Amino acid sequence: MSTGGEPEADAEMKAISGMTHITQNENQGEGGGGMLCLPENQVAGHRAEGGVLGPLVDKAGRFYKPLQDLERGENEVNFYQKFWSDPRIPPRVQHFFPRFYGRTSVQASDGGGMRDHAVIEDLTYQFQHPSIIDIKMGSRTWYPGASEEYIKKCISKDRETSSSLLGFRISGMQVYESPEKPTWKADKNWCKMLTNKGVRVALKRFVSLNPSSETDPDGLLAPYIYGAPGCILSQLLEMKAWFEEQTLYHFYSASLLLIYEGDPTSSNESFHSSGFTKRGISVKLIDYAHVLDGENIIDHNFLGGLCSLINVIAQIVADKA
Amino acid sequence: MSTGGEPEADAEMKAISGMTHITQNENQGEGGGGMLCLPENQVAGHRAEGGVLGPLVDKAGRFYKPLQDLERGENEVNFYQKFWSDPRIPPRVQHFFPRFYGRTSVQASDGGGMRDHAVIEDLTYQFQHPSIIDIKMGSRTWYPGASEEYIKKCISKDRETSSSLLGFRISGMQVYESPEKPTWKADKNWCKMLTNKGVRVALKRFVSLNPSSETDPDGLLAPYIYGAPGCILSQLLEMKAWFEEQTLYHFYSASLLLIYEGDPTSSNESFHSSGFTKRGISVKLIDYAHVLDGENIIDHNFLGGLCSLINVIAQIVADKA
Repeated sequence: MSTGGEPEADAEMKAISGMTHITQNENQGEGGGGMLCLPENQVAGHRAEGGVLGPLVDKAGRFYKPLQDLERGENEVNFYQKFWSDPRIPPRVQHFFPRFYGRTSVQASDGGGMRDHAVIEDLTYQFQHPSIIDIKMGSRTWYPGASEEYIKKCISKDRETSSSLLGFRISGMQVYESPEKPTWKADKNWCKMLTNKGVRVALKRFVSLNPSSETDPDGLLAPYIYGAPGCILSQLLEMKAWFEEQTLYHFYSASLLLIYEGDPTSSNESFHSSGFTKRGISVKLIDYAHVLDGENIIDHNFLGGLCSLINVIAQIVADKA
Repeated sequence: MSTGGEPEADAEMKAISGMTHITQNENQGEGGGGMLCLPENQVAGHRAEGGVLGPLVDKAGRFYKPLQDLERGENEVNFYQKFWSDPRIPPRVQHFFPRFYGRTSVQASDGGGMRDHAVIEDLTYQFQHPSIIDIKMGSRTWYPGASEEYIKKCISKDRETSSSLLGFRISGMQVYESPEKPTWKADKNWCKMLTNKGVRVALKRFVSLNPSSETDPDGLLAPYIYGAPGCILSQLLEMKAWFEEQTLYHFYSASLLLIYEGDPTSSNESFHSSGFTKRGISVKLIDYAHVLDGENIIDHNFLGGLCSLINVIAQIVADKA
């Protein structure tokens, strides 16, 4: 893997998806979902096209994430297995974590033959036109025990981006606008350049009816998507309450995904039965390649960033109230 | 100042005091408090003895902190002035901050002649036998805009001590035991060596009737000093509530002082009239040489460490419940 050893490699295989057929690569998943396809709604990480290794999806709502090198893949699978069999996890926070369906070997998207993949919940499976933002949490992304080289790279990235200052950074986003316009997408480099103010505008853009406006996203959906009962702010506060007491896991370099159905005419009853609220508004925690045992200490790095994110989003809601 | 430029220089002039006369240096304060003396209860920073520059106290409850070099002193005085005239500070949190009585020129303790000092509240003035712990807050002590050299030193210290892992480190402590035993004091190097577990034992030792026990401090005072209504945990939670919303200031390298009257036979009515509770139990935030404008962002670095400290102290209380 070309970027193995890079701090951003955590995000490399990350995607959230609908699906697009890969005609050149008729993958057969062993999980029973039939042909594997390219995820349609991927906002961060390398895409599985043009011979690049990346995630795939099936038609049954499962997401196939190729195991990363350098023990990252093993770490992630181990976390999923441990988490979903951990009796100390309160049921009220389980909905923040993608379901895990095991580990399987399928044809990798890079044409390199069979490769182990983690099979997890396809988080955008039920969406028609999801708006998605990927937020890498924590003012620092390095973890105790990492190599000096890795730590140095992380510190540089944290300082160059908004991580050090704000406690989080945006890694990718897409916002649905209307049937007439293409979904607005941010590229990786655009995200990297976001300052404190830029991050605020991006979080406002995420809940705007005119996301493609260069200068003035309207933020008109903020009271609903962010502020309404059960929606993003209240879910983040629920997550915060857990992080204030949980000392089980430290989530270094993990991301929060905020997702909602961008097309208001789309309705999907099944949202209601799976912990999703109206318009599928949901908060998910992903990317577990660097989850460490908590050693009886709270994850103050994640929690600090979460409190900062809550404060920024609450300001956006207040501005639109 | 020999250690100017060192990360720990923030703490250099820090002290909390009773008083010991300096007979060799009959200082005359201009604030009207008469002869200046050596603080008696100093747990961190250089002491003003043997020709070293350090803080002094008068007999009227004022603490004279010599202005540090490299703009640190100016920054600290500026913060005090700004803070105490800032209408955005809610009255409910003012008691966490030492009172500021201005800036004055007095004979410095190092014999170097007149020097500017910040005149602030002597936080242990009303105590007979204060038990004190100094906790440097935040998983990182460097601040945006610092020199690369300073940042590098801070990162090293944060990683060598418990700061990175726990979100805070202990910089000094003293615990009163009994009239028959000397007050138990931790030296700087002992503090620096504290691991995650060591910090927990130290915080238990701070509320023990046998603080000088090498192996097994009893923690018997935890339910009272930490856990009782209005005492340390509840004051920390009050502080946390403010840090969750305040975006005015970022307190890099600042310390929390936890103080209580170690001698239970000592009673001082004036504790009750000055925001102190029974046995003078109080939480103070000190050391403002690296306070930065918040730029509309919460101080997630301080807040994360505060949440971690609250969690550790709550665990100690729960163990003794």
